[in-house]
Amino acid sequence: MKNTFGNNITLTLFGESHGPAIGAVLDGLAPGIEIDEGYISLKMEQRSGLPLLSTSRREPDKVRLISGVFNGKTTGTPLCILIENKDVKSGDYTYGPARPGHADFAAFMKYHGYEDYRGGGHFSGRLTAPFTAAGAILLKALKNKGILIGTHIKKCAGIFDRAFDDYAADIEYLDRAVFPCLKETAGEDIKSAVRKAAESHDSVGGILETAVTGLNAGLGEPWFDSLESCLSHAVFSVPAVKGIEFGKGFELADMTGSAANDPLRFQGGSVVSLTNNNGGINGGISNGMPLLFSTAIKPTPSISKPQQSIDFIKGENTDIKIKGRHDPAIVHRAAPVLSCAAALVICDLLCARYGTDYLK
Amino acid sequence: MKNTFGNNITLTLFGESHGPAIGAVLDGLAPGIEIDEGYISLKMEQRSGLPLLSTSRREPDKVRLISGVFNGKTTGTPLCILIENKDVKSGDYTYGPARPGHADFAAFMKYHGYEDYRGGGHFSGRLTAPFTAAGAILLKALKNKGILIGTHIKKCAGIFDRAFDDYAADIEYLDRAVFPCLKETAGEDIKSAVRKAAESHDSVGGILETAVTGLNAGLGEPWFDSLESCLSHAVFSVPAVKGIEFGKGFELADMTGSAANDPLRFQGGSVVSLTNNNGGINGGISNGMPLLFSTAIKPTPSISKPQQSIDFIKGENTDIKIKGRHDPAIVHRAAPVLSCAAALVICDLLCARYGTDYLK
Amino acid sequence: MKNTFGNNITLTLFGESHGPAIGAVLDGLAPGIEIDEGYISLKMEQRSGLPLLSTSRREPDKVRLISGVFNGKTTGTPLCILIENKDVKSGDYTYGPARPGHADFAAFMKYHGYEDYRGGGHFSGRLTAPFTAAGAILLKALKNKGILIGTHIKKCAGIFDRAFDDYAADIEYLDRAVFPCLKETAGEDIKSAVRKAAESHDSVGGILETAVTGLNAGLGEPWFDSLESCLSHAVFSVPAVKGIEFGKGFELADMTGSAANDPLRFQGGSVVSLTNNNGGINGGISNGMPLLFSTAIKPTPSISKPQQSIDFIKGENTDIKIKGRHDPAIVHRAAPVLSCAAALVICDLLCARYGTDYLK
Amino acid sequence: MKNTFGNNITLTLFGESHGPAIGAVLDGLAPGIEIDEGYISLKMEQRSGLPLLSTSRREPDKVRLISGVFNGKTTGTPLCILIENKDVKSGDYTYGPARPGHADFAAFMKYHGYEDYRGGGHFSGRLTAPFTAAGAILLKALKNKGILIGTHIKKCAGIFDRAFDDYAADIEYLDRAVFPCLKETAGEDIKSAVRKAAESHDSVGGILETAVTGLNAGLGEPWFDSLESCLSHAVFSVPAVKGIEFGKGFELADMTGSAANDPLRFQGGSVVSLTNNNGGINGGISNGMPLLFSTAIKPTPSISKPQQSIDFIKGENTDIKIKGRHDPAIVHRAAPVLSCAAALVICDLLCARYGTDYLK
Repeated sequence: MKNTFGNNITLTLFGESHGPAIGAVLDGLAPGIEIDEGYISLKMEQRSGLPLLSTSRREPDKVRLISGVFNGKTTGTPLCILIENKDVKSGDYTYGPARPGHADFAAFMKYHGYEDYRGGGHFSGRLTAPFTAAGAILLKALKNKGILIGTHIKKCAGIFDRAFDDYAADIEYLDRAVFPCLKETAGEDIKSAVRKAAESHDSVGGILETAVTGLNAGLGEPWFDSLESCLSHAVFSVPAVKGIEFGKGFELADMTGSAANDPLRFQGGSVVSLTNNNGGINGGISNGMPLLFSTAIKPTPSISKPQQSIDFIKGENTDIKIKGRHDPAIVHRAAPVLSCAAALVICDLLCARYGTDYLK
Repeated sequence: MKNTFGNNITLTLFGESHGPAIGAVLDGLAPGIEIDEGYISLKMEQRSGLPLLSTSRREPDKVRLISGVFNGKTTGTPLCILIENKDVKSGDYTYGPARPGHADFAAFMKYHGYEDYRGGGHFSGRLTAPFTAAGAILLKALKNKGILIGTHIKKCAGIFDRAFDDYAADIEYLDRAVFPCLKETAGEDIKSAVRKAAESHDSVGGILETAVTGLNAGLGEPWFDSLESCLSHAVFSVPAVKGIEFGKGFELADMTGSAANDPLRFQGGSVVSLTNNNGGINGGISNGMPLLFSTAIKPTPSISKPQQSIDFIKGENTDIKIKGRHDPAIVHRAAPVLSCAAALVICDLLCARYGTDYLK
Repeated sequence: MKNTFGNNITLTLFGESHGPAIGAVLDGLAPGIEIDEGYISLKMEQRSGLPLLSTSRREPDKVRLISGVFNGKTTGTPLCILIENKDVKSGDYTYGPARPGHADFAAFMKYHGYEDYRGGGHFSGRLTAPFTAAGAILLKALKNKGILIGTHIKKCAGIFDRAFDDYAADIEYLDRAVFPCLKETAGEDIKSAVRKAAESHDSVGGILETAVTGLNAGLGEPWFDSLESCLSHAVFSVPAVKGIEFGKGFELADMTGSAANDPLRFQGGSVVSLTNNNGGINGGISNGMPLLFSTAIKPTPSISKPQQSIDFIKGENTDIKIKGRHDPAIVHRAAPVLSCAAALVICDLLCARYGTDYLK
Repeated sequence: MKNTFGNNITLTLFGESHGPAIGAVLDGLAPGIEIDEGYISLKMEQRSGLPLLSTSRREPDKVRLISGVFNGKTTGTPLCILIENKDVKSGDYTYGPARPGHADFAAFMKYHGYEDYRGGGHFSGRLTAPFTAAGAILLKALKNKGILIGTHIKKCAGIFDRAFDDYAADIEYLDRAVFPCLKETAGEDIKSAVRKAAESHDSVGGILETAVTGLNAGLGEPWFDSLESCLSHAVFSVPAVKGIEFGKGFELADMTGSAANDPLRFQGGSVVSLTNNNGGINGGISNGMPLLFSTAIKPTPSISKPQQSIDFIKGENTDIKIKGRHDPAIVHRAAPVLSCAAALVICDLLCARYGTDYLK
């Protein structure tokens, strides 16, 4: 398999930024899952981001469900999502100098110059749109099983959001939020900082934190398909992600075993740990505690500041000043996509464990 | 697939800590790859660690190649590695209280009590022995193609090693090193710190850094099988890994785009970037620069200090004082295993791209 | 994986007979493969069959290439094929009695009644249209590498076509043929017999024979991914196939070893066998002789004669007289689809063996 | 994946005929499945065949369960089976002329001469021993769920066994039978015919018929992973299989739709078909009727009669007279292996559908 993820629930993405359409095929879904078009739209809007912060390319991103849905419910056959590319301004792009921080040069080495270079082609962040549409279906199905997933900005431009507190309430809030911050003032400060970056023709990155509650213990495999392995596999597909850590992650490297180990206790009949430094996973397997991971998002590589680069057609050094419509930050737009990536992994593992019809 | 990794080169691990043997099946290898038994032994010894620092269980870890090798070379058919478990002291272990930080409770939830609980069973770090034997074959084959992989301790117990400088020389040094530090004094200080942790019945973690040079540009897929996805998938199979970052990783979250983007230049006919903040990967695809990633290793969970825990057979809270033979640190032992994990991914992607016989 | 085939080249089909569109995603293609739209149309027409013999539902079956193609060549990214469903007469179909010989009842047991039952839904033979479009791209790429694939009707309604003689010439003829018979009179006789079956409100089946020449020796795996395994896997996806045999197939069961074994000889520097009873495959691996297999196609289950059936909504026995537009035979229409199935397997194995760019 | 089969339950075979051992890794099993060593031995003996008919190489074939079993039950982790090669007479084999009908030449083209040519190496029928040991575990687990699988010789050397009658009773008989014929006289006649073939330094083939009863309706996928696709994929891994047909198979090609379609009826509350021409599968999905398929087994290629061949080391034509220990027929020995292949597919699909723990 190449551009497909999953074993029991699989997702394939296709399309180029300036081609006729982009889309996805989601396979392995149980028959009878309700399609909530409003919920899909909500996630699509959260992915689109706020007008002030994000690219001025405004796609209506109308999601067409081409197959696998009948009478408003999944049929159990492959579900194809199609999103037409409407607002295409190819004139903004040429096979010019490689954009630093982008895939342009790596893609050229892989595809020998046959790649569709317009607007990032298949590498475009636009492909997170069908990813999100597919993910919204999965997020909703998980919600119906009591499994909640939410992602907030832990940190952006040096500004911290508050940590998760009451998981269920916080995730419910994020599920509807226009901007994925738990603390309102943090959100406002981050927006200001992003606008400031835009004004200086630059961009900023950040850290996202994703939480999953209500997750069954016992998911994941000891070797190779550990829960961390599967989640990181999906998460590193999301453009701009350059790091992931579970629970305390890199902080654990500085802790002693006695501080890092999560003490176990019975609490109201079920087993809990008094701390959650391991982020809900031991030995690659979910332990019933909230699953927690943080993701490093690099600053958007498309900036209008001049940069040193190469023209690999001409074979010479050059400077580049990227024109066109670009995001000064994508961290807020990546938040719902990360929740979708987590939903994909969790649905896949749930169906492996409990069978096809589990999500119905 | 469950406990198997890879598409074109695949690795399956099997075995339990106190069963008759542990092993691996490595499939997809080109025919005609030379088996260097001395090199396998070297990697096995590096994985075993120094006597002073590591578990007092000393396994001879004699590697038997059961299949797939003929006249000292690979045949191209599945290669089975078998390592008998000799020094088994099952008396040290019982299905007692769950060990905090270990998989005991999660495994119980997954396997309903049928798991082989002795010595961690299938979750035991001992399974990194066949992983390493398989990896040694791959590391050697890559070396013959000019692709070098090395891992050193970036930080342990608060002590930093120096960064990679001359990659080829540093990796060559690590390839033979008894202790995986580039700076000798850092190594000595780390060993002292680990011994001190052992004396206080505790353990320490650390950060490992892995470098790959000589790697072809153009490896990896834009969506789902990005190079970061595949590497992190393999790396999170290694016990105790709780985080991974590529290039500057989490630091990128605090940088601006203009600082984070790696400027591109022609240098002696080939394309290089003046910085390597992206760790040799753009858009999920190798760009020809050295591949660099860091991994967070949590402190060994087995400590002899008393800890709060549960007895899930009796269904009650209890305290646990772990007896037996344990490592106060595994960070140095994990170093060669991470190189093996990287080798597995890179061989898999090389064979996908260039065909079965590429590694011959 | 569920509804996806292949490891290095993968094909996923989606869509329902009466949904908005049907389609396919073909992934793993080398960049730079020329898209010959005329050749795709030719294969689509061969799949459509002759007006007199086939369903009176006439779809223009316009193939849209949504992604993965740029400037008339593959980009190397997933190629999505979309075919809109235009001539939909849903009124002809209701969730009525199960049609004997069709998937209706089995599908109901699998999908619990959520399946799109209109016109066979996802089970419809219409999905061979995107299969054929994808296959046409692969067939053309193989042809450019000197690998030729052709399928003719070996037998239909008791009438035999002649055997393959000069493979290259015969396959070249079939590649362009309006009706897939090597002997013209056999073709005419078969057409008459099919028309006669239609007049008696019945249908007929047949046997197809597929040949592949120019195929590299050494393709396939000894266990599980034998060439026969992979070919049969793909071939049994084609609706109405109920049997497959390689070389002499079932006849071999009645032969002695001395008659069945193919004697080997050097001929003009290369190794040939004097007979080809094994159909070009030994031990699951191609041996350089023409690959030959025959496929049993059952008679079209949709007939207008009254049949005993059940109404599984009402839970009672009933009789059914199938209305609507149906084929009295599909054997001629299945012929190009089988060539496509073979092309898919062969491309997948070639890319596994020789790498991604082999088909460029 | 190469030499591994399955998605949720996977089997990997390894080993060479004259290497230290052969074996298998069976992964994905539910924890808590009882290991019935007597049943494994029974299947191993059935695979070994009767002394008079089969190779004079007598391996004790002692099955060692290396991992994945604890206290007599599966743990849920990968189960490794190991069978030492004891009775190895390598002197009988050299890298001599290619044996017609064998994989020797094809293997040479694939492995470039690095293959272990002794005794067929990895292609040896001996690898069906670990396949059978793994299959016995699955067959027993299915039996406990009411799913019965049996294979008999439908025809050998022109002699026909009777058809299945009372499936449950017939399969129960075959499960224990020393020779897999339902009619005793047919068995005796076949044995005589095989002995006669041996006396004339030749060999015979045959047709096997496999039945599965008690199988859940709704297994299999509409495209690519049809039940026929998955079964044929596994079945063509078994050496000497050259054809497979489901239900009436190739006979369907000569039938009309009205004769071929299986009429449906309610019978005692459940849905049955009055005939079973489709062999229990419609549209790739099980329909609840007995699953039936027949398999063509070619005559053993190893015969002591002189044959035309080549010496591909010397690059010249030669004659070959195969010495050593060979079977004049393997059809009876292949019977339990085919049941194992069917069990593997069915377990894989059941676990995909109903989850990991279904077989417990």
